[in-house]
Amino acid sequence: MNRRMILHMVGQIVMLEAVLLMLPLTVSLIYGEKCVISLAVTAILAVTVGLVMTLISRPGYRTIYAKEGFVIVALAWLLMSAIGALPFVISGEIPSFIDAFFETVSGFTTTGASILTDIESMSRGLLFWRSFTHWIGGMGVLVLIMAILPADSGRSIHIMRAEVPGPSVGKLVPKIRSTAKILYMIYIALTGLEIVFLLCGGMPLFDSVVHAFGTAGTGGFGIKSDSIAGYSPYLQWVITVFMLLFGLNFNVYFLIVIGRFRTAIKSSEMWCMLGIFAASATTIAVNIYPLCQNVEKAIRLSAFQVSSILTTTGYATADFDLWPDLSKTILFVLMFIGGCAGSTAGGLKVSRIILLFKLMRRNLHNMLHPRSVGIVRFDGKRIDDKTLDNVSAYFALYVGCFVAAILLISFEPFGFESNVSAVAACINNVGPGFAAVGPTACYAGYSWFSKLILSMAMLIGRLEIYPIILALMPSTWIKK
Amino acid sequence: MNRRMILHMVGQIVMLEAVLLMLPLTVSLIYGEKCVISLAVTAILAVTVGLVMTLISRPGYRTIYAKEGFVIVALAWLLMSAIGALPFVISGEIPSFIDAFFETVSGFTTTGASILTDIESMSRGLLFWRSFTHWIGGMGVLVLIMAILPADSGRSIHIMRAEVPGPSVGKLVPKIRSTAKILYMIYIALTGLEIVFLLCGGMPLFDSVVHAFGTAGTGGFGIKSDSIAGYSPYLQWVITVFMLLFGLNFNVYFLIVIGRFRTAIKSSEMWCMLGIFAASATTIAVNIYPLCQNVEKAIRLSAFQVSSILTTTGYATADFDLWPDLSKTILFVLMFIGGCAGSTAGGLKVSRIILLFKLMRRNLHNMLHPRSVGIVRFDGKRIDDKTLDNVSAYFALYVGCFVAAILLISFEPFGFESNVSAVAACINNVGPGFAAVGPTACYAGYSWFSKLILSMAMLIGRLEIYPIILALMPSTWIKK
Repeated sequence: MNRRMILHMVGQIVMLEAVLLMLPLTVSLIYGEKCVISLAVTAILAVTVGLVMTLISRPGYRTIYAKEGFVIVALAWLLMSAIGALPFVISGEIPSFIDAFFETVSGFTTTGASILTDIESMSRGLLFWRSFTHWIGGMGVLVLIMAILPADSGRSIHIMRAEVPGPSVGKLVPKIRSTAKILYMIYIALTGLEIVFLLCGGMPLFDSVVHAFGTAGTGGFGIKSDSIAGYSPYLQWVITVFMLLFGLNFNVYFLIVIGRFRTAIKSSEMWCMLGIFAASATTIAVNIYPLCQNVEKAIRLSAFQVSSILTTTGYATADFDLWPDLSKTILFVLMFIGGCAGSTAGGLKVSRIILLFKLMRRNLHNMLHPRSVGIVRFDGKRIDDKTLDNVSAYFALYVGCFVAAILLISFEPFGFESNVSAVAACINNVGPGFAAVGPTACYAGYSWFSKLILSMAMLIGRLEIYPIILALMPSTWIKK
Repeated sequence: MNRRMILHMVGQIVMLEAVLLMLPLTVSLIYGEKCVISLAVTAILAVTVGLVMTLISRPGYRTIYAKEGFVIVALAWLLMSAIGALPFVISGEIPSFIDAFFETVSGFTTTGASILTDIESMSRGLLFWRSFTHWIGGMGVLVLIMAILPADSGRSIHIMRAEVPGPSVGKLVPKIRSTAKILYMIYIALTGLEIVFLLCGGMPLFDSVVHAFGTAGTGGFGIKSDSIAGYSPYLQWVITVFMLLFGLNFNVYFLIVIGRFRTAIKSSEMWCMLGIFAASATTIAVNIYPLCQNVEKAIRLSAFQVSSILTTTGYATADFDLWPDLSKTILFVLMFIGGCAGSTAGGLKVSRIILLFKLMRRNLHNMLHPRSVGIVRFDGKRIDDKTLDNVSAYFALYVGCFVAAILLISFEPFGFESNVSAVAACINNVGPGFAAVGPTACYAGYSWFSKLILSMAMLIGRLEIYPIILALMPSTWIKK
C-alpha cells in the first residue's frame, strides 16, 4: 500500500479545510462574534497539520489503486470531521468533543442529525460553519480537490469511485478533472439559484444562504428549533422543489447544459424518483388531511416532508412523529430509498432499488424457466452480471450494517422505535427519526458510545460502506 | 401449463387432509366432545371435494415442470387451510371464517400466531387439530403425499423443491420417494422421543402430544394462556433441547442413522446455528439477570426463549416483551435468521445467512482487487454463481415482501413496534411479536384485511416466497 501517497492526499484535504474555514470566519467577523477566535485557531491548526503531513510524505511514486482510494477517503473524512469539530469545542458552544464530532460528522455526511437542544442560542459564525459542512460534504471534498488541483486521472478515478454515491460512477467527460469541475459548477449554480428564490420570498440573506447549503447537500441543519415551519408557504414550496432538484442525478443537468435535452428526460431513474414522490405525497396528504382540515396545508406539509425524507434532507415543517402510522411507515421506507445516484442524497439510491427489482424479476423468471438466461437492461443499456452482483452484495452489506448498528445501540433506554429510526435516519443520512429522535427532539440523550456508532453509521451511509469497512479491516493494513 | 395435473394433485392433498382429520376426530370421540360433528362434516366435505377434483381431472400426460410445482404447492396450501378452518367455524369455537383461516394458516405454516383470547375454553379435539396442523405443515403435506403415493421422480423434484425450505434441496438418496419416507421416519421418531421425555417429566399425555407437535413443526401453538411458563423447569429444558433439535438440518440425522457420524458433525450450518444460540442465550441471560435475581432462572428463561425464537417456534416461558431493549432487539434479529435449511424452522435459514456473509466478503475482496475471481465454498464444496445469485435475489425478495406487508398493515392503530414485529413474526413463522402482538397478547385486534395480509406473509415465509408470488402473477396463468 502506498502509505506516503495516502498521507499526502489526506494532508491536502486538511489544508483545504483550513481554506474553507475562512468563509465562516468571515461571517463571524461581519457579525463581530467571539467565535471568530475558535475558527481562526482551528484554521491555523489545520494548516500546520496539513503542511506537516504533506511535507513528510513527498511520495516517491504517485500511483494508487482501489485500496488506497478507499483508505484516503475514509481517513480524510474522519480527520476532516475531527478538525471541523474543534471550533464548537474551543468556543465552548458545544463543550463535549464527542458531541461536536457527532454534529460535524452529521454535517459533512449531509445527515443533519443534531445534539443541539437550543439551536437559537448558537453564534451565527458557527451556525454558518455547521450548514457549510453540508454543502462541502454533499458533493464531496475529494471531488473538490480534484476539481482544483492538477492530478493524473489514473489515480483520481479510484478516489472518485470511493466518494461519489451510486452503483456506478459515470464520467461525464473523459477527463476526471473536468468532470469534477462541471459537477461543482452545476452545484454552485443551483445553490445560487435557490438563494435568489429564497431572497425573493423575503427570507433574510443569512437564512437564505444556510438553508440553501442545507438543501444543496440534502443535509437538513436549520437555524430554528422548528426547522422550516416558521417560514412562509412560498419559501416552503421553494425548498420542496430544490430538495427534489438536488436529489436528482447531476448527469441530467449536465445533459441539459450541453443541449442533450432529449437524453436527459429519458432518465428512468429520474421518473421513478418523481413517481415515488408523487405517490407517497398523495397518500400522505390524504392520510393527514383530518389533522390539517385544509387541502392546501395537507398537500404542502405532505409534499415538503416526502421531498425532505426521500432526498434524505431532513428538514421539517410539521412534527411528522405525530402523524398516523401509515404516513410514518411510508416516510420510514422512503428513508431507505433515498435520492438518485450521482446526487447529493443518501439512502440506497433509486437506481439500486430499480436494479434490485429487475434482479428479483429475473430471479422469478429463472425459477419458472431454469435454463433461461435473463438479461437486465437499464435505460436501454445491458447491465453486466458483475454490476448486478455488486448491487445485491451492497444491499446485503447495507442491511447487515443497519442490523449491526441497531444491536450495538439497543442497550439505550429509548425503545425499539427510537433506536431503529435513529439508525435508519443516520445510515441513510436523513437526520430526524421518530419518537425520542423525532423532528422536535434530538440525539443529545444518547451515550457517547452510541453517538460514536451513529457517527460511523452516517459515514458508512455517505461513503457507501466500502471505505469505512475496508479502513477498519486489519487485512487492509497488513503488508503481504 | 398442465392444469389437469394441478387439479389432480391438489385433489389428492384435500383427500389426504380428510384422512388426517381422523386423528383429531378420534381424540374428540375419546373425550366425548361436541366438536366431533364439525370434524366429521369437514372430513366428509374434504373427501367429496377431493374425489371430484381428482375424478374430473384424470390427467392425459403426467409431466409437470417447475411452474406447475409452484402452483400445486400454493393452491394445495391455500385450499388445505381453507378446509382446515371449517371445524373451528362449524363448531362455533371460532365463529369468524377469516379468524379461523388465519389460525389454520398459522398452524400449517408452523407460525403459531393466534387470534384466540381464551385458549383454555377450547375443546380438546380442536386444540389437538390446531397443534396437529403444525406437525403436518412442518415437514410438508406434499412431501407426505410423495412418501405414501407412488410417483415418478421427474415430477416430484419440482414439488419437493417448492415445499422444502432452504437454498438447495438435497436428495438424501437418489429416489425422491425414499428421501420423503426417510424424512418422515426421522420426524416421527424424534416426535415420539420428545413425547416420551415429556411424559417422564409428569406432563399429561394430551399435553405431551400437542406440545411435541408444536415443537416438531417449530410451530408454537400451546394449550395454556401462559404457553409453557406453567410447566416444571425439567419440561422447559426438554422443550428447549427439542426445539433446537428440530431446528437442525434433517440431513444430519440421516447421516447419523446411516452411520456417517463424522460427516454429520462437520456440518458448518449446525455449528453456526449452535454458536448463534450460545452467544445470544448468554447475552440475554446476563441482560435479564436483574429481573430474575436467580442464575438458574435467568439461564433457563434465556435459553428457552432464544431456542424458541431462533427455531421460529414461538413458545414462551416469560413475557419477553417486558425484557430490556437489548434482549428484545436480539430476539427480533434471531427471528430473521431462523433455523437450518432442511429443518421445519422458518426465517431466512442459517445457511442463507452464511452464504450472504460469504457473498459480502467476496464483494469486499473484489472492491480491493477488481480483477480477482472469488470462489465461495460451503462445507468444502464450491458454490456456483447461480446458487449465490438465487440467495441474494431471495434475500432482496424477502426484504421486499417484509416491507410491503408492513406498509399494507400500517393503517392499523397499534403503532410501529407492533406492526413491524407482527409482520416479522408472521413472515418468519415465529408467532408472537412485541407490544400489541407480544407473547401475552394475540392477533385478534387486527382487521380482516390485515389478517389476510399476515396470512399471506405466513405462507410466503413457510413456502419461501416463490409459490405464492408466482401463483399470484397473471403471467403464470396466461397461455402463451
